[in-house]
Amino acid sequence: MLEYLNNGKEKIWDLMKVHDSVAIVIFNISRQVLVFVKQFRPAVYYNSLPAEETGPTIDTSKYPPSEGITIELCAGIVDKDKCLEEIAKDEILEECGYDVPISSIKKITSFKSGVGVSGSVQTLFYAEVTDGMRQHSGGGNTCEGEEIDVVDLTLSEAKALIFNEDVPRPVTLILALMWFFDGNMSLTNLPNKL
Amino acid sequence: MLEYLNNGKEKIWDLMKVHDSVAIVIFNISRQVLVFVKQFRPAVYYNSLPAEETGPTIDTSKYPPSEGITIELCAGIVDKDKCLEEIAKDEILEECGYDVPISSIKKITSFKSGVGVSGSVQTLFYAEVTDGMRQHSGGGNTCEGEEIDVVDLTLSEAKALIFNEDVPRPVTLILALMWFFDGNMSLTNLPNKL
Repeated sequence: MLEYLNNGKEKIWDLMKVHDSVAIVIFNISRQVLVFVKQFRPAVYYNSLPAEETGPTIDTSKYPPSEGITIELCAGIVDKDKCLEEIAKDEILEECGYDVPISSIKKITSFKSGVGVSGSVQTLFYAEVTDGMRQHSGGGNTCEGEEIDVVDLTLSEAKALIFNEDVPRPVTLILALMWFFDGNMSLTNLPNKL
Repeated sequence: MLEYLNNGKEKIWDLMKVHDSVAIVIFNISRQVLVFVKQFRPAVYYNSLPAEETGPTIDTSKYPPSEGITIELCAGIVDKDKCLEEIAKDEILEECGYDVPISSIKKITSFKSGVGVSGSVQTLFYAEVTDGMRQHSGGGNTCEGEEIDVVDLTLSEAKALIFNEDVPRPVTLILALMWFFDGNMSLTNLPNKL
């Protein structure tokens, strides 16, 4: 809780200190697919329920857990004393199984991932990978309980996601897809493609 | 807190039921400016502080409150029993002072505004306004303690915001700007501009 004076008026705001994070647009140039992760998100599932159904137990036959399965960018929080590119590299390997050289990880931009309760910073990267860089099938850090499916989408499948509301997808995924498919984009001239 | 079984394993997740929300890309066609709101965001300010400075008091001479002043889209939560377009219309009037006909408010798309702690849905709209629709100078609902400045940006100023990290700006603002400036955009053909 933060108490502060705004134009002489006392105000109180509930907030959280939240870790900054990285997210990566991964393009597999060997197969011309974009690489995403799919996972069950409890908060997305819970918020998809009608208010009257959020009691002590939830009827999963009526509200299938698939409502909480999102397609997202490979991402992770900044909880190590490493540079952001290294954290992005670790996440790409851990979640998607590609061992990418640091030099292939290009920053797009950073922004506030929330402004209400949390105001942490997310940095968005772009990485081109090849099938030759694949070390394992990914899936996240099982010690931390992560259960992630790696999903390859063709360019037309990925483009269709921008306006497909049937798939629970976060705002950052749409931003990344718009950036990737922007007519002005130049992959050799990052991030000043505009 | 949600307890659930994932592949037979018991899991626990902290989460919140959060109101859905609307956000609006406002284009003033009389003066060819995009209309945004500027406000102090306690969570953005707090999360911009180094961890060692988040004790009981904060030295605002060392950490100026301007670090918490964001530029955002006009937006609001869905807390009334009205359709989303009506809620968007109310927010445009309340925050920015324009009385826009409902028919001018076009949906772009909707998405999850968060996937970690909150999983609420935000719906993004586009509205063209004219100087003739201006009823007052905006500023938000003062009864609710809102203190908002309306900011008009020329198209080139707005475009420059996409990659300008010196201005605290949320991900949704960047998404909206990318959408607006996308070479493929057709204002007469929403939302299927791709």
